[in-house]
Amino acid sequence: MTFATIAIIGLGLQGGSIGLAVREYLPEARTTGYDINPAHRARAAERRLVDTVCDSAAEAVRQADLVIFCVPPGAMGIAAEQIRAALPAHTLVSDVGSSKEAIAKALGEALPDHLVIPAHPVAGTENSGPDAGFAHLFRNRWCIVTPPDKVDMLKLSELVAFWEALGANVEIMTPAHHDLVLAVTSHLPHLIAYTIVGTASDLEDVTQGEVIKYSAGGFRDFTRIAASDPTMWRDVFLSNREAVLTMLQRFTEDLTALQRAIRVGDADTLFDQFTRTRAIRRSIIEEGQDDSRPDFGRGDHEAAKNP
Amino acid sequence: MTFATIAIIGLGLQGGSIGLAVREYLPEARTTGYDINPAHRARAAERRLVDTVCDSAAEAVRQADLVIFCVPPGAMGIAAEQIRAALPAHTLVSDVGSSKEAIAKALGEALPDHLVIPAHPVAGTENSGPDAGFAHLFRNRWCIVTPPDKVDMLKLSELVAFWEALGANVEIMTPAHHDLVLAVTSHLPHLIAYTIVGTASDLEDVTQGEVIKYSAGGFRDFTRIAASDPTMWRDVFLSNREAVLTMLQRFTEDLTALQRAIRVGDADTLFDQFTRTRAIRRSIIEEGQDDSRPDFGRGDHEAAKNP
Repeated sequence: MTFATIAIIGLGLQGGSIGLAVREYLPEARTTGYDINPAHRARAAERRLVDTVCDSAAEAVRQADLVIFCVPPGAMGIAAEQIRAALPAHTLVSDVGSSKEAIAKALGEALPDHLVIPAHPVAGTENSGPDAGFAHLFRNRWCIVTPPDKVDMLKLSELVAFWEALGANVEIMTPAHHDLVLAVTSHLPHLIAYTIVGTASDLEDVTQGEVIKYSAGGFRDFTRIAASDPTMWRDVFLSNREAVLTMLQRFTEDLTALQRAIRVGDADTLFDQFTRTRAIRRSIIEEGQDDSRPDFGRGDHEAAKNP
Repeated sequence: MTFATIAIIGLGLQGGSIGLAVREYLPEARTTGYDINPAHRARAAERRLVDTVCDSAAEAVRQADLVIFCVPPGAMGIAAEQIRAALPAHTLVSDVGSSKEAIAKALGEALPDHLVIPAHPVAGTENSGPDAGFAHLFRNRWCIVTPPDKVDMLKLSELVAFWEALGANVEIMTPAHHDLVLAVTSHLPHLIAYTIVGTASDLEDVTQGEVIKYSAGGFRDFTRIAASDPTMWRDVFLSNREAVLTMLQRFTEDLTALQRAIRVGDADTLFDQFTRTRAIRRSIIEEGQDDSRPDFGRGDHEAAKNP
């Protein structure tokens, strides 16, 4: 392991999980960490998310070989400026943000003399904060690394090896392509989930109690991702605006077509659309990105074992 | 138990689960069943979904005290007509369909001399067919019963007791209100999920392989419900058209507002919307309609136990 000391800035779901994963899978490495919220620092120390919780970001990075920013996309630039003076020249800078072009630019501008290789582990839960992390978050998940055009190949391979050690499969792509892929696989689903949960809260004819009670009909699947961290998601949409708006336009066109099919009673169009979406589900399960058990083991466990 | 013999017409996820649940929770009752698909009848017999798989619907209902139609909403009327001549006068007729006004009308017209009390267990998985059912599907789920204005209260209470015996909590409401509630908690989520999975399949710049690979970012949550039975869902949208279109209109307005917030960079609107949706998620978990474990126990089990 080439990174002897790893500094984690931001000790929420992602930062906490990285700290715990390093302890489990790379026990020879030392971790330091910082979070802007004093209560989160205290809790991070209690949970031992990192070996040393520091009182400033500068202190956390002073001996680091790798710094990973795990703060919301909109806070990356400011967080990077706070460590500039303290950062050793050789230290590799990375992050876990869900948009890559904007973050690459913000980190690059704040740390012009350092190598920045952004990354994005496509793994998460709806929980956030210092209690949310766990060591196995990245296992069998993809981590997308988006190196700049000119990159030290040795550093790149070290970063790839780091994520592989934490259990992730690594893929390399350009920041622009990452942002387009994630707009459809992550950002648009979150936007839609946030919307429908909001819509359901505001109805006059159906109470919120009824929405909650009968959520097992499908709605509850949306509430999980609509419970994700609001600050982070606000920043994701603002930092990946163009790709999100492009995908949203496509979605709206498709929804309008289905709306028309319902209105005019076009049974064939509905059936055809509902048939072809099944194949994608099968592929996701085959590739190990989801679980085929009914309700993913929700509810009682006998039910989960006995489909 | 007042229903000595229960006939189940349609042996898919719902019908099969009812048959298995009756054997487990009401072992003194006898079950008969029929499915229009001969291969499904054969498989139903192998799995012993009901005590006797019959070669016609008429034969299945001839000695029944309760008949439950578990066919797609659009097939209810035809299925009911097929049993009219064979149905004993005292037999109570019910169903499990996801829309209630249209089905009540179809069953009432086909069986004018019988008492019809429609019902809808709000429980399911994305699987369908004779292999999909399991005995515990209805446990701790809600079953909505929508009796007609003039109803035999004894029969109603027997139907309620039947569903409670299978583990469900029963709620009584009008068919019209049911259809409005389910439009938002089930039908709209399914429509949106089908749409986004279709949108993601048709992109030029992002391959289907990439969509599958990075689905853990949120997209996979939508694919589960978009893998539901196409025939049933086509019929649900056509039979609950007005309520679905009303809810869809509300959703589209809300989505447009968020789209504008992203376009103009209105961070406060995004943050406020994303904050208030968290509370609903908490309520759903508190009321036992979902599981708070990260990923609902998806992926490896150590991760699920160790959030």
